[in-house]
Amino acid sequence: MSDHFRILHQDKATSARLGRLVTAHGEVETPCFMPVGTQGTVKAMLPRDLREIGCQILLGNTYHLYLRPGHEVIRRLGGLHRFMGWDGPILTDSGGYQVFSLGAMRKLSEEGVKFQSHLDGASHLLTPEKSIEIQQALGSDIIMVLDECISGDAPREYVQPSTDRTVRWAERCLRARSVNSQQLMFGIVQGGVFEDLRRWCVDALASLPLDGFAVGGLGVGEGEEQLHSIGAFTAKLLPRDRPRYLMGVGRPRDIVQAVCAGFDMFDCVIPTRNARNGTLYTFNGKLNIKRAEFADDPRPVEEDCGCYACQNFSRAYLRHLYMAGEILSAQLNTLHNLYFYHRLMDKCRKAIRTDQADVWTEIWPVQETP
Amino acid sequence: MSDHFRILHQDKATSARLGRLVTAHGEVETPCFMPVGTQGTVKAMLPRDLREIGCQILLGNTYHLYLRPGHEVIRRLGGLHRFMGWDGPILTDSGGYQVFSLGAMRKLSEEGVKFQSHLDGASHLLTPEKSIEIQQALGSDIIMVLDECISGDAPREYVQPSTDRTVRWAERCLRARSVNSQQLMFGIVQGGVFEDLRRWCVDALASLPLDGFAVGGLGVGEGEEQLHSIGAFTAKLLPRDRPRYLMGVGRPRDIVQAVCAGFDMFDCVIPTRNARNGTLYTFNGKLNIKRAEFADDPRPVEEDCGCYACQNFSRAYLRHLYMAGEILSAQLNTLHNLYFYHRLMDKCRKAIRTDQADVWTEIWPVQETP
Repeated sequence: MSDHFRILHQDKATSARLGRLVTAHGEVETPCFMPVGTQGTVKAMLPRDLREIGCQILLGNTYHLYLRPGHEVIRRLGGLHRFMGWDGPILTDSGGYQVFSLGAMRKLSEEGVKFQSHLDGASHLLTPEKSIEIQQALGSDIIMVLDECISGDAPREYVQPSTDRTVRWAERCLRARSVNSQQLMFGIVQGGVFEDLRRWCVDALASLPLDGFAVGGLGVGEGEEQLHSIGAFTAKLLPRDRPRYLMGVGRPRDIVQAVCAGFDMFDCVIPTRNARNGTLYTFNGKLNIKRAEFADDPRPVEEDCGCYACQNFSRAYLRHLYMAGEILSAQLNTLHNLYFYHRLMDKCRKAIRTDQADVWTEIWPVQETP
Repeated sequence: MSDHFRILHQDKATSARLGRLVTAHGEVETPCFMPVGTQGTVKAMLPRDLREIGCQILLGNTYHLYLRPGHEVIRRLGGLHRFMGWDGPILTDSGGYQVFSLGAMRKLSEEGVKFQSHLDGASHLLTPEKSIEIQQALGSDIIMVLDECISGDAPREYVQPSTDRTVRWAERCLRARSVNSQQLMFGIVQGGVFEDLRRWCVDALASLPLDGFAVGGLGVGEGEEQLHSIGAFTAKLLPRDRPRYLMGVGRPRDIVQAVCAGFDMFDCVIPTRNARNGTLYTFNGKLNIKRAEFADDPRPVEEDCGCYACQNFSRAYLRHLYMAGEILSAQLNTLHNLYFYHRLMDKCRKAIRTDQADVWTEIWPVQETP
């Protein structure tokens, strides 16, 4: 059924699995992390530097690219890959998450979501069909169905009809897809924190010819415990032979936990956004490069890290760049954090491949405050 | 006398010369351009990307590094090269230019310049001895004497005593230099727009054991014609066997003209600052990437340019990055502009090497509004 995804190894101790996802622009080893390239660029990263740090696949944002520069412009210029100089796989979201983040600036109906652009206030209507049209113009390798991303504390009375509609929208997305498209299409499981609604949504979506499944609506205010319990609960229900993507989550420890629950794909702005705020990840915890203690520190951010930043610069230099407001600060910090995230995923894959519980325990104890 | 500088070829048609400058961190082919790394970084450029675009030597700013992070910090961390991850030659200015730019926030005496930091208002005294002490702590390959940079419209009554003092300060800088230092020390010719004062200053400095000579106080309001006439006049007076550095100048056409007048070294913030403002250089003139006409333009900035930006991205993409306020805009634009400047210097060196007047005329017609 799913010749685009193969499970290479199933971990013995956990639900984690090693997989290979085949897309029109190449293969991806899973579990994998997708850096976020909101506006057609992973902020502060040259595409060649993304390759160097081991990046396999990027995420692009339909909402932003639709508004600026416009999907038709990108189509005319040969698609998003060519536009942004990245010839590897790209997954695009549906635009739904950003539109729902607009709060009072959007209005929901069965047809779709009316919203006002955050750039100029102009009105737009995002429907399932429109989202697919945009993502087809962008030419991404994996396109996401339009869903409503419900906040974590939404009551059952809201979640149930919303989840129903999300399923109807998924069906419309499938109908809107071009025949013979090389693009994979993933569904999105909603259902809030209600296990029966999650189960119902999985059952409804699993009967559709979707190429993979995302779990949405987690990490949006429901709390860490529910994030992981609902996440693990939902992952178990999903078809084993198709990729599972936990959307927008998250912190290193969240990712490791979700890998053990059987998720294959992740995206999050944390490594890139935190980099620009001076927060750097290491396997001994986070490091706030602003702190005065680093002013004289000749050590790299992380001793055994192979990234360009750690190989060439001291904490003192990175602190100086941050304090001086230099662009290079964002560049080097982002390089390091994304390298760290990809190394984390490497460690996860190695742990699965070798069935080594001791490797898992090496990854787990990432000390991190929420 | 000057075993650190060799003239390899003298152009037949002009005063331009091809040279080789030997420093503690490697050789530099002249004429050369030095990108400005004000705060220990050429803005938006990884050191490895500087190497790639052909950068031979950088300029560092004593004023900025003295105030932040402090020269003693940099000394303890192994010097500026190690601090900023650049193992090629570095020239540091004396700090004078920045201090004099502070206007009302500084006060001049025979001893030195009292000034208030632009960061926190704290008082500092920059003397010739202090400037050398800082530059020695930074460990740059070429250090500059402290001078007073006079504005282009200063009257003779001001320029004469100031130029006298600049010469006395040069003598103090030489006395302050460590014996056995590997650092080269360059003097700075002042004298405003007055040929006899320029000549007097050259004569006074040429008798000192300086390793090279800069011409300062040009490009600071005296107008384009005087810039070039005073520049050419002064270059002719300078010892033939030592490098000549035209400080802070400038635009591509200024550089080509000054190369023909016999200058060997240049620095300017124009390529890097303009890059961040969306102004891109080509051999067919400048290009303002903001313009709507580029929104759909699939061409690179310059067709035959070998830089990473031109090899991988369209004008449409660069415009998009600029309009979206993306950091990558500064990165790619800076890469291109510095590549352009280094290509310009390559063309200059080739024109000298081959005595080809026709190559000069290929470089000259750079269309550019002031």
